Amino acid sequence: MEEIQRTEIATLGEFGLIDHLTKNFEIKNASTIVSVGDDAAVIDHFGKQTVVTTDMLLEGVHFDLMYTPLKHLGYKSVVVNLSDIYAMNATPTQITISIAFSNRFSVESLDEFYEGVYAACEKYGVDLVGGDTSSSLKGFVISVTAIGEVTPDKQVLRSTAQSGDLICVSGDVGGAFLGLTIMEREKKIYLENPKVQPDLEGEDYIVGRLLKPEARKDIIEFFANNNITPTSMMDVSDGISSEVLHLCKQSNLGCRVYEEKLPIHDDARMAAFKFGLDPTVCALNGGEDYELIFTLKQEDYDKITLNEEISVIGYMADIEEGCKFLTKGGNTHPITAQGWNAFTK
Amino acid sequence: MEEIQRTEIATLGEFGLIDHLTKNFEIKNASTIVSVGDDAAVIDHFGKQTVVTTDMLLEGVHFDLMYTPLKHLGYKSVVVNLSDIYAMNATPTQITISIAFSNRFSVESLDEFYEGVYAACEKYGVDLVGGDTSSSLKGFVISVTAIGEVTPDKQVLRSTAQSGDLICVSGDVGGAFLGLTIMEREKKIYLENPKVQPDLEGEDYIVGRLLKPEARKDIIEFFANNNITPTSMMDVSDGISSEVLHLCKQSNLGCRVYEEKLPIHDDARMAAFKFGLDPTVCALNGGEDYELIFTLKQEDYDKITLNEEISVIGYMADIEEGCKFLTKGGNTHPITAQGWNAFTK
Repeated sequence: MEEIQRTEIATLGEFGLIDHLTKNFEIKNASTIVSVGDDAAVIDHFGKQTVVTTDMLLEGVHFDLMYTPLKHLGYKSVVVNLSDIYAMNATPTQITISIAFSNRFSVESLDEFYEGVYAACEKYGVDLVGGDTSSSLKGFVISVTAIGEVTPDKQVLRSTAQSGDLICVSGDVGGAFLGLTIMEREKKIYLENPKVQPDLEGEDYIVGRLLKPEARKDIIEFFANNNITPTSMMDVSDGISSEVLHLCKQSNLGCRVYEEKLPIHDDARMAAFKFGLDPTVCALNGGEDYELIFTLKQEDYDKITLNEEISVIGYMADIEEGCKFLTKGGNTHPITAQGWNAFTK
Repeated sequence: MEEIQRTEIATLGEFGLIDHLTKNFEIKNASTIVSVGDDAAVIDHFGKQTVVTTDMLLEGVHFDLMYTPLKHLGYKSVVVNLSDIYAMNATPTQITISIAFSNRFSVESLDEFYEGVYAACEKYGVDLVGGDTSSSLKGFVISVTAIGEVTPDKQVLRSTAQSGDLICVSGDVGGAFLGLTIMEREKKIYLENPKVQPDLEGEDYIVGRLLKPEARKDIIEFFANNNITPTSMMDVSDGISSEVLHLCKQSNLGCRVYEEKLPIHDDARMAAFKFGLDPTVCALNGGEDYELIFTLKQEDYDKITLNEEISVIGYMADIEEGCKFLTKGGNTHPITAQGWNAFTK
């Protein structure tokens, strides 16, 4: 039987730990002048704008280590921040990462977490340039800040959509929420009877959507290669309803979104039926898909028709027309946000 | 009797809360192109380098809300990050701030925290450009990332000291640790007998050093005005011993530090005696003073003699000479770091 090594963090100390965790990170961007190991990182830009975003993830609130492998968690912590940089039509270049953890974590478990961080940095070509490690009384806390660059003419905000613009979504939505639903079900079964093995057959896709999301770098590259600049854009972290309402509110517009146009993966649809859930509701209100939602001028429609990863789900309207959802059955409902509500639960 | 208002966070929601907390922040830097309210902030630089640093603070580990007013905590959370930017000889321009808190916090308490954040941003001329708010199961967590700028010729690292350079420290050291010692004593007394009033008479200085530290913007400005570029620099967050060892290790040098040269405030010295502590040990190993420690070429000595806020405490030596501390009594001891050791306690 393989013996699992456990190195106490105390054997390394803070600075030994930082050295240990970051020694395999090689610098990928010419703009990274000074990286980990000084008071601050130094980044050089020539005529480009710096883009910054930050997210905090807490054990028990944003993730459950009972079914989240630490490597996946490290990967996801980076990806969710890169997704925000892409949502500005920018290219991520550097990240900083701060973690706090209790003494139930060993050096090996932090290594696993950093393997995921490293894999995401490799895949997306970003440099880890700084961070902070500290102890927590309880639970694992992660805070990532991502930095990117964009030329002023390419930057895309949430507030600049125009009435009549097409509303588009990349990939498919609702899958991550269904992945969460199945993992929560399996956790409950396990806690009731630890001998029962998890039943995840056929659920790879939705579980993968939850545990190992990707940021849509490919869509931003597609825009660049095809001379497309969306009129507004954001990433889908809280569900389509919530994000459409953000674009409408910040652009001072209304909208129409069509149920039949929502991109839902077959596996997500099947899982929804299995749980007695409406796939449309999962797509509208389920979070964590990390797709991009953006608006396009109608004359740009021809440029996207050949990309199977982009769906047109509706259009922006004047503010007087309200924000409406049109069902397959021909009914019209006002769109309401049912995303983040941690404090009302 | 004044009634204290308590607004539940649920009444605002996440986005309402962010709007509420950030509505009073005005943009101060021309480089701030896009601020709070989109996926990421956008910062423009013309031929300057971007400097980035981040720190995470956790309730029960880095601060105790029993004796830390939330406004002071907000102020300090910003200041400790700005201190890292100044330690690069750079000028801080933007910050992002993420917080997580349980439902024992009201909107009013978060307002107090943000009042402190706002005061620090005002004082140091930085823009709050983004962040994240989320719930925590327990305790208050803060993560701040600070961004600054510097021209390539002015940037000062830890690794570039030369043998023979003077080691200098701004202000005085050890005070914050003594402030912490007195607050911990008062907390203990209070917990044993809640009717006893705190005895902080004459301790304003050291308590202020703990609860409302300042970053040494004035020293960086003094360098600029007097054409001084330190050969290496960092901020003093873990005590002089630990920081001197960092400069030596990263510059591949040894050093000599003189006990009689350590700048210790009279009030700190008095407090140390009261607690039966050695003021020198407090100065060497006590953290959180947020002063700057830097090395200077000997020929620059004349440029600093008139600045009463700068003390020369020793000099850098060849690595073979080791890192030594010379006491008033004429003894020589190796310098050892006894700062951050949360995991060995």
